Amino acid sequence: MIKRVTSRVIPAQAAGETGGRALGETATLADIAQAAGVSTPTVSKVLNGRADVAPATRERVEALLRACGYRRRSVQAAPLLDLVFHELESAWAMEVIRGAEQVAHQEGLSLVLSQSAGRLTPGQTWLDGVLARRPTGVLLVLSKLEPAQRDQLSTRDIPFAVIDPAGELEPDVPAVGATNWQGGLAATRHLLELGHRRIGVVAGPDRMLCSRARVDGYRAALETAGLPYDPALVRSGDFHHEAGHEIGRQLLQARERPTAIFAGNDQQALGVYEAARELGLRIPDDLSVVGFDDLPAARWVGPPLTTVRQPLAEMAAEAARIVIGMARANDRGPASNRVELATELVVRSSTAPPRA
Amino acid sequence: MIKRVTSRVIPAQAAGETGGRALGETATLADIAQAAGVSTPTVSKVLNGRADVAPATRERVEALLRACGYRRRSVQAAPLLDLVFHELESAWAMEVIRGAEQVAHQEGLSLVLSQSAGRLTPGQTWLDGVLARRPTGVLLVLSKLEPAQRDQLSTRDIPFAVIDPAGELEPDVPAVGATNWQGGLAATRHLLELGHRRIGVVAGPDRMLCSRARVDGYRAALETAGLPYDPALVRSGDFHHEAGHEIGRQLLQARERPTAIFAGNDQQALGVYEAARELGLRIPDDLSVVGFDDLPAARWVGPPLTTVRQPLAEMAAEAARIVIGMARANDRGPASNRVELATELVVRSSTAPPRA
Repeated sequence: MIKRVTSRVIPAQAAGETGGRALGETATLADIAQAAGVSTPTVSKVLNGRADVAPATRERVEALLRACGYRRRSVQAAPLLDLVFHELESAWAMEVIRGAEQVAHQEGLSLVLSQSAGRLTPGQTWLDGVLARRPTGVLLVLSKLEPAQRDQLSTRDIPFAVIDPAGELEPDVPAVGATNWQGGLAATRHLLELGHRRIGVVAGPDRMLCSRARVDGYRAALETAGLPYDPALVRSGDFHHEAGHEIGRQLLQARERPTAIFAGNDQQALGVYEAARELGLRIPDDLSVVGFDDLPAARWVGPPLTTVRQPLAEMAAEAARIVIGMARANDRGPASNRVELATELVVRSSTAPPRA
Repeated sequence: MIKRVTSRVIPAQAAGETGGRALGETATLADIAQAAGVSTPTVSKVLNGRADVAPATRERVEALLRACGYRRRSVQAAPLLDLVFHELESAWAMEVIRGAEQVAHQEGLSLVLSQSAGRLTPGQTWLDGVLARRPTGVLLVLSKLEPAQRDQLSTRDIPFAVIDPAGELEPDVPAVGATNWQGGLAATRHLLELGHRRIGVVAGPDRMLCSRARVDGYRAALETAGLPYDPALVRSGDFHHEAGHEIGRQLLQARERPTAIFAGNDQQALGVYEAARELGLRIPDDLSVVGFDDLPAARWVGPPLTTVRQPLAEMAAEAARIVIGMARANDRGPASNRVELATELVVRSSTAPPRA
């Protein structure tokens, strides 16, 4: 079942006044150039992300473009769709790429792939590249843009959307996520129903909203069942296998070890598998494990992993459809769609009742 | 250790004579236009992959471009690198993307990703897109180009290289592969040294050279050890998990079942894991398994998989360096580099001596 939370926000119109001359929405490049005291080709260069403009000039022109709510409409977008990852690795990214590529291909667009080297905001070099190649739209994965970067896309009329937002987003930014809280709730309820009472969590990074929502779902399930929340059982990793391994060891070597672990994603769950193997604990006999994502490998590991399915390819496809729709409709106000696709518990063989 | 097999081939120069006028390498667009009986802008349109040219005209212009060995040099390449997969899935593709993206990023290029929907030759729609966006270079993964497509890239001066070539390539096409034969040899020798004598193979597709080289390495190891090659023990899959599962079941349910299986890639090896689990066979006690690729998951599965490491990211990076080098050097003759990077056996816990 797909749950949609849709909203539309009409932004307040910005208008600037500079050099004694009001610059409104209908300002032309020549108007901007005059107000900035530069030539029209210089304004064009700034719009195209060209490097050969002095930083101060560039900033002045950007400020004017922003102030008058300028939107470039004369230039045809290239048949490209930009997809930006904060880091490009693992089968997780592959699922997102597959979903975005499928829709891009259907719509006659090619996919341009970038990564922002682990940072949650892509760099200015990337943005200059985007301005120069003028893609039809931009998809950000687990990333967000600085306000200035948003303005730069908006003045060039390049729509963007966020897949699996990591942090708070401005209300007018379209985003496609998953029902993370419900997923954490379902995973924990499943373990509670099996009879587990001491359930550890190898959470994802605290700074990511998706990760925090999953832990809150865990907490809500405990509270609903009348069980206390023990912070000593909840530790945060970075979504990589190694963190699952390390934190899994810590939790499993504690004096009162948990009988089950809910991992913030599948990679961390497989790290917990490794920790359990090293400590001679059998899954699910001695330890139940639940993951999150349902990457292809979840079916193949031994034992096959019980996990919360997150429809990553569909999320990327939906986000691609949103930005392409915005570009094709030539929508003036940034049409905002907040969509959350449903997560779903997939029970396999890594969970069982605790031993008496 | 990296083994390099480098060769350079200088192609015979092509020259065409048409309409009573010799068209040589120095032919201009106007010369081509005159010979084809069309306008110069029409020739430009054909060069740019535009759709608004009649097919017959287009074909005539392409033939002339090809015949006179035309190379477009006037147009600056876009800071893009095209990467084309025959199919976009699994952690295997992710490794290739990572390697190509890293070099592209270092060189100030963005990566454009496409897939040719399972076919080993990308479609004309893709090629028209390439001609229109004029990337700095093209990387093909497990794919090849039709002769006409090669000519189209060559006349537009867009260099290309093949990563992990699937079939025979013309000698002047640069390609980066891995030492597949040696990998098959090393995997099989490892099993022989452990004492296995009945070794099954879940091979990759017969049409792919990399796959056939691995099986030949297996065969060579048997012959060197004075053991017969039994074709009943060797079956071909399609590199997917399901094929490993299905063929693994067939091999393991045979009257005289193998004590070890060499799988053509890691995904098929994990399919064999699943078949063994279903049949109640323990790995490595009842069955040894060796994979090929060393995808990240190979370390995480239970038991961790003994496999032949193929440096996929490095192969993609090397191929990217080759095409970018060709583009930057503005090389006239297609500089050809045949590079094979070394494979390496990684012994983990899925292999052990057979039970007496």
